[in-house]
Amino acid sequence: MEFDLIELIRQRTAQSRDDVRLGMGDDAALLAVPPGQELAVAIDTLVDGVHFPHGSAAADIGWKALAVNLSDLAAMGASPAWALLALTLPTGDAAFVEGFVDGFAQLAQPHRLALVGGDTTRGPLTVSVAVHGFVPPGRALTRAGARVGDVVLVTGTLGDAAAGLHALQQPRRNDEGSSGPREFLLDRLNRPVPRLAAGIALREQAHACVDVSDGLLADLRHICVASGVGAEIDASLLPLSSALLGLHDDSTALHFALSGGDDYELCFCVPASRVAQVQADLARLGCGATRIGRIVAGEGVRVRGQDGAWLDIASSGWEHFA
Amino acid sequence: MEFDLIELIRQRTAQSRDDVRLGMGDDAALLAVPPGQELAVAIDTLVDGVHFPHGSAAADIGWKALAVNLSDLAAMGASPAWALLALTLPTGDAAFVEGFVDGFAQLAQPHRLALVGGDTTRGPLTVSVAVHGFVPPGRALTRAGARVGDVVLVTGTLGDAAAGLHALQQPRRNDEGSSGPREFLLDRLNRPVPRLAAGIALREQAHACVDVSDGLLADLRHICVASGVGAEIDASLLPLSSALLGLHDDSTALHFALSGGDDYELCFCVPASRVAQVQADLARLGCGATRIGRIVAGEGVRVRGQDGAWLDIASSGWEHFA
Repeated sequence: MEFDLIELIRQRTAQSRDDVRLGMGDDAALLAVPPGQELAVAIDTLVDGVHFPHGSAAADIGWKALAVNLSDLAAMGASPAWALLALTLPTGDAAFVEGFVDGFAQLAQPHRLALVGGDTTRGPLTVSVAVHGFVPPGRALTRAGARVGDVVLVTGTLGDAAAGLHALQQPRRNDEGSSGPREFLLDRLNRPVPRLAAGIALREQAHACVDVSDGLLADLRHICVASGVGAEIDASLLPLSSALLGLHDDSTALHFALSGGDDYELCFCVPASRVAQVQADLARLGCGATRIGRIVAGEGVRVRGQDGAWLDIASSGWEHFA
Repeated sequence: MEFDLIELIRQRTAQSRDDVRLGMGDDAALLAVPPGQELAVAIDTLVDGVHFPHGSAAADIGWKALAVNLSDLAAMGASPAWALLALTLPTGDAAFVEGFVDGFAQLAQPHRLALVGGDTTRGPLTVSVAVHGFVPPGRALTRAGARVGDVVLVTGTLGDAAAGLHALQQPRRNDEGSSGPREFLLDRLNRPVPRLAAGIALREQAHACVDVSDGLLADLRHICVASGVGAEIDASLLPLSSALLGLHDDSTALHFALSGGDDYELCFCVPASRVAQVQADLARLGCGATRIGRIVAGEGVRVRGQDGAWLDIASSGWEHFA
């Protein structure tokens, strides 16, 4: 199985990059990092039924396996270059592999990301992708570096992927009317768009950055721990899509936005004096950025409800909602 | 689960390497390839019950997951530097993870290989490791480059891992006597030793190289295809361990050696004039190297039996034996 599938994958995902000295097909790929660049590397795994719904379209799985990894590069402000793919499949299902590769390639090609190595094995459906990107030395965005007084912003909208998963798990309602909002939310779940251009633009501006993969609260907490600070979020400021608000009451929408995960937006911290400029810069890239709170002394993340009182996050089960 | 397990893994596998600018714990690691070096990268997956016997010791799985990847670097003549680990586990079993990390670290530490990134997920036991090594530009060993007249050599002994797997699948015989040979073969199966020093030494000498992961015939065929040549092997020259010969008749031992796979020795091609020097160089590294045949015009791999006649490989099921 291995050779044919990897050969199929290679044909559809090869990119003409000067920095790929030897691509897929030998014991290892040979790559040249451009002078004056550091390498940013990350690996993420998707397991059938855990990270995507069982029965997901192969193309969606291929797209998402790459997207969640590219989102890690986006959060570092790195430009994507190469990927490795470890694909474990129950059977040598050529149609599945073709669909998977189509989805993977749809996302890889506009970024000129080259798949340089892979391994296909038999077993329960599991996909690991490792990505490699470039970043000028010392200029990467990290989770550490947020400062007291920084404004916390987030790109795009939050909670859509969780609402998409919820929609999948519910029977469709007869009174739903147009399928527009539902399709939008499913697309957000199945085809997340990594914020690569935004991450690169933020390299010069943000003190800290993380991608929202586990949910805003969990991921912003990573920034707080790494930076030795706390954060206060205003629930009323969270950017929510009209699709999310159209299908859910405010309380459920807030749950999804705070804890849903899988949105792959960027959450980042900038000095107050730079907020307007950053928002303008990102807007030019077609990426909205909303201020949702600020960094404070202390630790942990607090959320101010729409009535002005702090939400009791711990006892309301936010962390385990998704 | 993720944070604690990865933190445990990080603590046990961090190495002080100047080229690791930011290790595990952020969205991506930041790495600096030394000036004047190319990067060799490979990824391999082990699936429970497919690439290691179900019920294998956690430490053996950890060792082997890294070993099979380092063997790919060895086959390229690259020096190992960094690894990424994607570990999928059915449960957050701390004892399993500790054992796994012990085995991984036992192999990583002497090579100063740093684990720089990881992802732990819930699902059927599956391990993917991606490795990164350095090689001077244009000096890597590849599968292409074998020339007609080259001598084919192999390091160590062949067929031991297949015999180890066979031993595991058989009840122990009462007349086996000492467990020495059986333990040797199991160790070869569970704890393969990647031929890293040999690979680096061969960089200046060999025209082509591959690691024996799928079995000698299959892997030498990779060299033939990539180089546009054929190969002739003498069955009587194959290096077989006394453990293998002690537990199996000649015919079975030959089967294992030709098709068994999982030995992670290097098979390589050098001009006849260099054979003695190469053997002396590798012997200084404690690595035996045996000449087993030669490269010829044409295509495919032929094996001359001990009676001087060509073996009928296709019809005797060699390819499917293991």
